[in-house]
Amino acid sequence: MDRFVSRVAIIGAGPSGLSALRAFSQAEKTGVKVPEIVCFEKQTDWGGMWNYNWRTGVDEFGEPVHSSMYRHLWSNAPKECLEYADYSFDQHFQKPIPSFLPREMIRDYIVGRACASTLKKYVCFNSVVKHVEFDDDRKHFTLRFHNLVTGKSRSENFDYIIVAVGHFSIPNVPSFDGIDSFPGRILHSHDFRDARQFTGQNILVVGGALSAEDIALQTYKFGAKSVTISYRTKPFGYDWPPEIEELPLLTHIDERTVHFKDGSKRTIDSIILCTGYKHHFPFLTEDLQLQTENCLYPDQLFKGIFFQRQPRLAYLGMQKFYYSLPFFDAQAWYLRDVILGRIVLPEEEDRASDIRLWRERVKQLSGPSEGIDFQVDYARQLLDVTDYPKVNLLAAAAMFKLGRVHKQENILEFRDKLFTSPFTGTPSVANTVRWIDAKEDGIL
Amino acid sequence: MDRFVSRVAIIGAGPSGLSALRAFSQAEKTGVKVPEIVCFEKQTDWGGMWNYNWRTGVDEFGEPVHSSMYRHLWSNAPKECLEYADYSFDQHFQKPIPSFLPREMIRDYIVGRACASTLKKYVCFNSVVKHVEFDDDRKHFTLRFHNLVTGKSRSENFDYIIVAVGHFSIPNVPSFDGIDSFPGRILHSHDFRDARQFTGQNILVVGGALSAEDIALQTYKFGAKSVTISYRTKPFGYDWPPEIEELPLLTHIDERTVHFKDGSKRTIDSIILCTGYKHHFPFLTEDLQLQTENCLYPDQLFKGIFFQRQPRLAYLGMQKFYYSLPFFDAQAWYLRDVILGRIVLPEEEDRASDIRLWRERVKQLSGPSEGIDFQVDYARQLLDVTDYPKVNLLAAAAMFKLGRVHKQENILEFRDKLFTSPFTGTPSVANTVRWIDAKEDGIL
Repeated sequence: MDRFVSRVAIIGAGPSGLSALRAFSQAEKTGVKVPEIVCFEKQTDWGGMWNYNWRTGVDEFGEPVHSSMYRHLWSNAPKECLEYADYSFDQHFQKPIPSFLPREMIRDYIVGRACASTLKKYVCFNSVVKHVEFDDDRKHFTLRFHNLVTGKSRSENFDYIIVAVGHFSIPNVPSFDGIDSFPGRILHSHDFRDARQFTGQNILVVGGALSAEDIALQTYKFGAKSVTISYRTKPFGYDWPPEIEELPLLTHIDERTVHFKDGSKRTIDSIILCTGYKHHFPFLTEDLQLQTENCLYPDQLFKGIFFQRQPRLAYLGMQKFYYSLPFFDAQAWYLRDVILGRIVLPEEEDRASDIRLWRERVKQLSGPSEGIDFQVDYARQLLDVTDYPKVNLLAAAAMFKLGRVHKQENILEFRDKLFTSPFTGTPSVANTVRWIDAKEDGIL
Repeated sequence: MDRFVSRVAIIGAGPSGLSALRAFSQAEKTGVKVPEIVCFEKQTDWGGMWNYNWRTGVDEFGEPVHSSMYRHLWSNAPKECLEYADYSFDQHFQKPIPSFLPREMIRDYIVGRACASTLKKYVCFNSVVKHVEFDDDRKHFTLRFHNLVTGKSRSENFDYIIVAVGHFSIPNVPSFDGIDSFPGRILHSHDFRDARQFTGQNILVVGGALSAEDIALQTYKFGAKSVTISYRTKPFGYDWPPEIEELPLLTHIDERTVHFKDGSKRTIDSIILCTGYKHHFPFLTEDLQLQTENCLYPDQLFKGIFFQRQPRLAYLGMQKFYYSLPFFDAQAWYLRDVILGRIVLPEEEDRASDIRLWRERVKQLSGPSEGIDFQVDYARQLLDVTDYPKVNLLAAAAMFKLGRVHKQENILEFRDKLFTSPFTGTPSVANTVRWIDAKEDGIL
C-alpha cells in the first residue's frame, strides 16, 4: 500500500458489510487507529438479504427491490456452521435453540452482533451508491450517492472501496421458447414471497440449486397440488413426496402446457424461475466491475477479495458459498489488516499466479463435499494470519457434510436434526414441531 | 436560441420519441437542414409502453422493466381520437376497422408510421441513458449511455436533450397498515400481465383512475369470483355487474381480511395496486429533473415542454392525457420548430408568467369534460404555429366526451360503439364479437 488509507467506503450493510464494520470496530477497541469509514446502505435498515420486503420489482423510490427473502424461509444448513467466532448463539439468544432457524432469528442474530458493536454510527441509510470511478490523477475514488428520502445526491472521495452488495438481488431470467404464450403467473424466485400464493396449484419450478429445492419444498408444504422441478444438468434425486417430481429441462411452452426434454408434458398454473442471480455492479465504471458467474473462486480477485486491476477495490462475499457468516468474517478481517497495513499484498504478477492456482484447484473438485473442503481451506488461509478468534473449521466442514447427508436421507426432515456448537459446546434443542408442520413465520 | 443546435439526443423511442423523430424527418424531406439526431432506446425495439413484455420487475439486464402492458388490453378511447393527422388509419390498415382496438393494433399503427418514415437509422437500441449533465463552461450536455448487450458505456455531447421516457413505468406503491401480514399476492398494475391469473379469485383493486377501471373489468371478464375496487376520493359509479363492487379506501389489512373506511371487510386472495406512477428521471442531475405529479400542466415546463431552468432540455408527453398520439405530435412539431429556430422562446420571466397562467386555468377546471377542453386548447395553440396538418380538435373533443358518456351508460359495452374519422370520413365497423366476449389477444 503506497500511502495510508484514510477514508474507506463500504457499499452495503448486509452480512458482509457488517462483518467489515465489525472488523474495524474490533481493531479500534484495541486502540488501533483505523480509517474513517462510511457505509452506504440503500435500505432503511441493515441486514441486507435478511430484510423481508413485501414489495417486489421496484420499490417506493423506483429502485430495484434488494430482497429475495420470503416468508417461512428457514436456514438450509445447521446454525452451528454459521456461528460467529466472536459472538456465540448463547451470547445472543441466552438459551438453547434448534439447529435450523427461521429467517427472523438469523436476522436477529446478525444485527444483534452489529448492535452490540454500536456500528450504526458508520451507516448512511436510504443511501444508494450511483457512481464510483477512480481518479487516476488524484489517485482516489469519487463516489456519488443518492439519498432516497431527501432526493439529494452528493459526491465524496475515498481511498478505498469495499463492495458488499451481495449477489442474490439481480435475477438471472432466461427466456424459454413459447414463454410468451403462457397465461399464468411467471416469476423469478427473487419475487417469491409466500408459498400460500400457490396453494392448490400445479407449479413448475425451474432450476437445480438451493432456490429450486427450497421453493419446491415450500410450495409443497403449503399445499400446492403438484410441483414439477425442471432441472438443466441433473436432478436432486431426493426421495420427494408424491406431489413433487423432477423432469429434465423444459423445451417449450404452449399456453398452459409445458413440454420437457424427455417428451413429458404438464399442465401448469404458475412458473417459478429459480434460475439464479447475476453479479451486477452498474454503479461502478466498467473497468472496476467484477465479471463472474456464481463460483467458488471468481477470477480477478486476489484472495477472493482484492480486485486485480485496482487493489484498492475490494469485494466481499462474492463467492458461491456453502459456508457463510464466519466466511464473511474471514474475508473482512483479512481485508481490514491489508487496509491497516498489517498484511502487504504481493506484486501484481504474484497475485495473478495465486489466483490461477486457486482456480486450478476449483477445476479439480468433484462435487459439493470437495467444495466444502475447498471453502474451508480458503477460509483457513485467511484466518491463519489475522487475530480472528479460533474457528474449528474441520467441525464446520463436518457439520455441513452431515447436513447434506441428512438431506439425502430425508428431504422433509433434515431441518429437525440437532447439532452441537463447536465454540460453546451447547447442544441444540428440538423445536416444538417438526419443520414440515411449522407453519408460523416468526421467532421460535 | 443563442447558437445553432447541431446535435440532439432523444431519450426514448416510444410514442412521443417517435413523434419527435417523425417531426424532424418530415422537415428534412422538405429540404430543411436539421440537427444530427440520436435516439436512445433501452428496449430491443421501439414502441415504448406498447411493447408487451412477459417479464416483470427487472429484466434480463438488471434494468427495471419498462412495460406496464398487459394482454387483452384494448384502447379506452375511440381510435378516432388517436389518429395522426399525417398518417390515417385507412393508410395503415387499408380497410375499415372498429373504433376500439386491442393493444397490438395500436402498436402496429404507431410503429407503422415510424417505419414509413424510415426512422430506425436514428435509434440506438438496447441503449439505456445513465447520466446527463449540463456543462456550464462548454455549454453542452454530456450524456452517458450503456449498451445492455455489449456491456459498454460511452459518453457523448449534445446541444439539446429531449426526454421522452414516458411516465407510466415507475410504479407509485403506497404502503397500507398491515400489508405485511397479507399472505396472498400483492402487485402493482405495472406488473399486471394477464387477467387469467386471477380466475376464480376474490380480488382487491386499489385505485380510482383508468388502471383500476380497466383491471377491474379485465379480471371480471376473465372470471374473477369477485372484484372489490377500493377508491380514495370517489367511486367510478358505473353500473357494474354484480361481481364488481366499490368500497371506500382500505384502512388496514389483517392477514386475508381487508378492512375499509365504511366498516366493511372482505376476504381477499390477491391485491392489485392501481395506485399510479411516478415521473422519475434518475439519469438526470437533480437540477434538470422535472418534479411533478400526474397533472394537466406540470410546473416548470413552458408550453408543457421546455424546462424552465434549462430551456435546451425538453420533455415530451409528461402530462396527464386524455388525448394522446396527435397530442405528442403537437408537442413534437412545436419543439422541432423551436430547435430549428422557426419559433423563438420568450424571455424567462415571460415564460414563467405563461406557465402560471395555464396552471391557473387548470385550477378552475371542474372535471374531465373541462379537462378535455383544456387539453384541446393546449394542443391548438401549439398546432396553430407549425405546419402540422390540420386537426379537427373540436371533433376529437366531442368524441372523447361521447366515449365517456358511453362508459357511464354501460361500462361493459362502451367499446362496442362506432365512430367516424374526422380526417378521412371513414366510419368504423363493428368487431365480429362484442368486447366483453372477445377473449383473444391479437390483431382483430
